[in-house]
Amino acid sequence: MNTDNPREIRTRIRAGKWMRPTSGLAAAYAQANLVILDRKYAFEFLLFCQRNPKPCPVLEVLDAGEREPRISAPSADITTDIPLYRAWKKGNMLAEVPEISDYFNQGMVSFLLGCSFSFEHALITACVPVRNIEEGKNVSMYITNRKCISAGPFSAPLVVSMRPIPDGLVSRAVRVTGRYTFAHGAPVHIGNPKALGIADLNTPDFGDPVTMKDGETPVFWACGVTSLLAALSAGLDSCITHAPGHMFITDILNESLAEG
Amino acid sequence: MNTDNPREIRTRIRAGKWMRPTSGLAAAYAQANLVILDRKYAFEFLLFCQRNPKPCPVLEVLDAGEREPRISAPSADITTDIPLYRAWKKGNMLAEVPEISDYFNQGMVSFLLGCSFSFEHALITACVPVRNIEEGKNVSMYITNRKCISAGPFSAPLVVSMRPIPDGLVSRAVRVTGRYTFAHGAPVHIGNPKALGIADLNTPDFGDPVTMKDGETPVFWACGVTSLLAALSAGLDSCITHAPGHMFITDILNESLAEG
Repeated sequence: MNTDNPREIRTRIRAGKWMRPTSGLAAAYAQANLVILDRKYAFEFLLFCQRNPKPCPVLEVLDAGEREPRISAPSADITTDIPLYRAWKKGNMLAEVPEISDYFNQGMVSFLLGCSFSFEHALITACVPVRNIEEGKNVSMYITNRKCISAGPFSAPLVVSMRPIPDGLVSRAVRVTGRYTFAHGAPVHIGNPKALGIADLNTPDFGDPVTMKDGETPVFWACGVTSLLAALSAGLDSCITHAPGHMFITDILNESLAEG
Repeated sequence: MNTDNPREIRTRIRAGKWMRPTSGLAAAYAQANLVILDRKYAFEFLLFCQRNPKPCPVLEVLDAGEREPRISAPSADITTDIPLYRAWKKGNMLAEVPEISDYFNQGMVSFLLGCSFSFEHALITACVPVRNIEEGKNVSMYITNRKCISAGPFSAPLVVSMRPIPDGLVSRAVRVTGRYTFAHGAPVHIGNPKALGIADLNTPDFGDPVTMKDGETPVFWACGVTSLLAALSAGLDSCITHAPGHMFITDILNESLAEG
């Protein structure tokens, strides 16, 4: 498989030949979080995203019942081209499945939201180390004491991801990631975790703890898990998301969206 | 009147003591285009804006029936605090009015969209001349041959505003305005008007022609009139907008939104 080509990767995923997380695949292209919910709640969920653009940057919203992301991945199928999905009912997980034909219906609207993979690639290119990648781990994520602005039935605390950055490179990390507003953009906080209500960096709420070295500062970015918590907060009868780390790979080059 | 204070200006507008355009008022604060339409169409209109963020940058969307922009101007009233409104029916103008109590109802959703006044202020601060302000005219606006991405019943051509910029300052104009993505951001086109389907810069579709001097390049920015054309394109039974140049003045400092 040509792991740089989004179409080829999606074809393999659709055929059930790639069941693993998508980190590192087609690194030049934007990957996306997926949230699918009923048309009835689509306005308020889009409004939640509009009100909280740092954690919930919208890449594309499909028309109700539409399976093809015409803007970000023409010819793709949102119901088959992600390696692993999660189906939810009233906030509880029903199933983890490789395709969602049993759950998707014509009244559903699919949201694709930007993902930090885009800026991790840019950080590495800019010689800023990304510890979770170095250590082969999932990034450390924390629920903060900051509340997002709610919309209709959707509310959530701000969730952040944390990467330890060498003190001398923090400024560069801010500038590099700030170019990618569609992928959470610049950090929301630098330094003291307690200011965000995080008691212990070694016990993240999601993902893995990573090594923090002397001379490094914890840097916090808004995280797409926020949108998942928001979607589940409404206790909808049905909701479908990607499984963590198993993202939708678009045909959009990160650089084509950089700086707006 | 303290013309630097948004609350004071809005209070005067509400009392009917300021009936003129808002250009130049409270220049440090973001001003906004207004589109009000029925809840039934709110998702698709918000989707139109999400799909076309350069012409339609969303500052705030109010909940249905809500008159107070809680995020961008707490205590303001969207139905009274603009100097002049336009009420529309099936795409035709019904009335131009100083407040909209006869037209607004509890089923309506208000959209506030960013406005180029924010970056004009920044251009002048950066020593880039803004011809329409120098000449006391409305900016020149043109309907282009570029189509926006439609959403539901909403479609529109991209409308642009044009400012002649001294050749040596074009690069600076790009960088300065690029910081204000909530106010149309960087130019969508620089130079040849014909590439946008504009036959003659001296006959704009909206606004006034301005003087183009030797050694100047026409620079084109996405324009909020696009959102007006989109709203009217749907032929809705009712729609309310601001009158051209009569914007809503928020409490949000332009610099607080700059660079995302």
